[in-house]
Amino acid sequence: MKRTSRDIRTANRYEVLRQIIAESPTSRQELAAATGLSLATVATLVGELLELGMITEVGFEDSAGGRPRGLVAVNASGGALIGVDIAETYVRVELFDLALNVLGRADEDVRPGENRPEQVVAHVAAAVGSVVAQAGVTGARVLGVGVSVPGQVDREGGVSVYAPNWDWHDVPLLDLLAAHIAYPLHLDNPLHACTVAELWFGAARGRGDAVVVNLGTGVGAGLALGGELHRGTTNSAGEWGHTTLVLDGRLCHCGNSGCVETYVGAPGIMLNLRELSPGSPLLHPEDQTATIDALARGVAQQDPVAVKAVQNTGRYLGAGISDLVNLLNPEVIVLSSWVASALGEPLLAEVREAVARHALKRPLAATEIILSPIPTDPVCLGAATFALEGALSSVSQKPGSPSPKKTTGGRTARRTTPARSRTAPPS
Amino acid sequence: MKRTSRDIRTANRYEVLRQIIAESPTSRQELAAATGLSLATVATLVGELLELGMITEVGFEDSAGGRPRGLVAVNASGGALIGVDIAETYVRVELFDLALNVLGRADEDVRPGENRPEQVVAHVAAAVGSVVAQAGVTGARVLGVGVSVPGQVDREGGVSVYAPNWDWHDVPLLDLLAAHIAYPLHLDNPLHACTVAELWFGAARGRGDAVVVNLGTGVGAGLALGGELHRGTTNSAGEWGHTTLVLDGRLCHCGNSGCVETYVGAPGIMLNLRELSPGSPLLHPEDQTATIDALARGVAQQDPVAVKAVQNTGRYLGAGISDLVNLLNPEVIVLSSWVASALGEPLLAEVREAVARHALKRPLAATEIILSPIPTDPVCLGAATFALEGALSSVSQKPGSPSPKKTTGGRTARRTTPARSRTAPPS
Ligand SMILES: [Zn+2]
Ligand SMILES: [Zn+2]
Repeated sequence: MKRTSRDIRTANRYEVLRQIIAESPTSRQELAAATGLSLATVATLVGELLELGMITEVGFEDSAGGRPRGLVAVNASGGALIGVDIAETYVRVELFDLALNVLGRADEDVRPGENRPEQVVAHVAAAVGSVVAQAGVTGARVLGVGVSVPGQVDREGGVSVYAPNWDWHDVPLLDLLAAHIAYPLHLDNPLHACTVAELWFGAARGRGDAVVVNLGTGVGAGLALGGELHRGTTNSAGEWGHTTLVLDGRLCHCGNSGCVETYVGAPGIMLNLRELSPGSPLLHPEDQTATIDALARGVAQQDPVAVKAVQNTGRYLGAGISDLVNLLNPEVIVLSSWVASALGEPLLAEVREAVARHALKRPLAATEIILSPIPTDPVCLGAATFALEGALSSVSQKPGSPSPKKTTGGRTARRTTPARSRTAPPS
Repeated sequence: MKRTSRDIRTANRYEVLRQIIAESPTSRQELAAATGLSLATVATLVGELLELGMITEVGFEDSAGGRPRGLVAVNASGGALIGVDIAETYVRVELFDLALNVLGRADEDVRPGENRPEQVVAHVAAAVGSVVAQAGVTGARVLGVGVSVPGQVDREGGVSVYAPNWDWHDVPLLDLLAAHIAYPLHLDNPLHACTVAELWFGAARGRGDAVVVNLGTGVGAGLALGGELHRGTTNSAGEWGHTTLVLDGRLCHCGNSGCVETYVGAPGIMLNLRELSPGSPLLHPEDQTATIDALARGVAQQDPVAVKAVQNTGRYLGAGISDLVNLLNPEVIVLSSWVASALGEPLLAEVREAVARHALKRPLAATEIILSPIPTDPVCLGAATFALEGALSSVSQKPGSPSPKKTTGGRTARRTTPARSRTAPPS
């Protein structure tokens, strides 16, 4: 998509708030230095954020010889954000303050067979009600709710286009949720949520191009290019799990064969283990989590089958990651999601070795491969970040006239963006 | 890399000039509509381009009820640009006017064994001198020279980091050229040149995200994301030829095996043909061009071996391109370079079929796959475009102070950018 002046202003607003959240308190001068924006632009954006109550003035610091510099900090209590992680077997909801501290959490089990949209929506509505009550925030303070649902998502339309877990096709999820939830709603998928979480609060913050490799049941590669999530033409960029690693290799549920996911997604890792040792006691045929946890424990105990299975997985994963290194030449590659955090350093070491064998020297030298540093559920955090981004995007100047003489003074007319957020009367 | 205000201004300047070159004459109002920029921003940028002599006022058009609108057009004779395509066996140089019409061309053969940097530089210097003389332009009108050299390039340093054809390592090519050529010099590689040519003048112009798949002896995928070339952290993004298509497949000169390039680069296609029919008369073992041309003629004559060889190549290529569709979700994929233009529609048809089989439905539906519409040498054109971009980047406001109140009035102080361009006294 081409970037308009308005896109650029919104991206700059993200960048400034991101920096303030990371480095409160801070001065306009420090923000200009950290973001590369001009002091005048920073002053305008800071004015807007102050007017919104998202940040506050917190005093002054001396500047060598000059007049004292005003300091600003994030106004943690200036609003609340809700992140919703809809997964195959659970719905998790977290409520955050504006500094992205967790103030409340609710989990709901989704039982096998409970796969109708109305059932899932009921779990989400109950959990959202629960976190708002727990945190004791008034509804008015909730700036928005970000919802992550697996699969392909039409973000503008608020539609779950295809969710393979439940065989959902074109489910108007935000419309269904809006009947129960009165706050602005924003829909996307876990891959994009994890990527945005890394971009705002994790390994990609303040870095150049980053790739967030998500290792779970499914596999994806979220692309954070030029400081922004690369969504692609129809918001489906990042489907790296369905790129070919082995032509005519293992059959994939997408219809293709040899997809990366069939070798390094949790079921693929189980198959790697089964190929090594069909009767391995590490294998829990119906339980991905139990198997991955058993593998992790096995590696810790130097169990040779576990070590070899992680080695083989790391080799497949490293070959695939080398492709990302060569194609995109990123500054950092982050391994994220539950499989990455369960297998941790031993997997990372194998991956680094394999990438060093496969990738071209020049991009290899420029790329760091690391585990995600985000300690909490990155999907909830990222989903809440969508709500934060939504709140920042809906603050806008009069559309179409961001002319130079109007950029000073911090005009902050609130504008709703109906295509991207839905609201309904309180239920 | 993070985008600064200055980057954004430069990108907007590209976008406006690109649009004027495509649609001369045009009005500021049309430019604002086409680019998504505000009228005030467009007016500022148009003022800068007028002051530079890159465009001219060419009259007025009536606007319904309003006052007449001023029209601007590209000032073709406002400057000259030189594009240099250094290839394994030849050096081609073209001189363009500012409307990117070719005014002069010179080819020099590079004989086998002539692989020292000084020898290649001498060919470039001779050809540049020749096109300037042919076109009868005065040196003062030459705004810059873009130089494309195969392999990995340190653009800021002007260094050919690694050119596999000649086994060059860290050759300071721009310094060597600057001893002979008095104009600002800009270095990059053919993949990036072709991509920028598509972005300014070809299939990617005015589109969303595009991928330019370059099929020659080597293979690459130039990424035009958000209207700009994605260069990556060290300018090596696009090395798609060295991503894995077949794990443990054909050995590649990069040290990896199963690389895309070993199946769809010209030598890979020859291998596809040999696997089908080891003694095929279509095969010219020492001559890639002759073999690819024979294949193209064979397909035109329904020769079953030729048809099958192109089919197999299209299947490999389609599987690889599906990965790009799934990962990047682009709006358009362009097949470029000499192998693509030789095998043309028959190859394209096979590729489209294979992509339809491999790719995910949602990104597939959003992607068009086409042959490059650029009729001339895209590498020379793209290299000249680097010179044009260089000339536009070196026009700048006082760095670090692009404050709103200064953006009106079209200040156009010339500023040299020593890290990116080199000049020397005339030789
Ligand atoms: Zn698949
Ligand atoms: Zn290779």
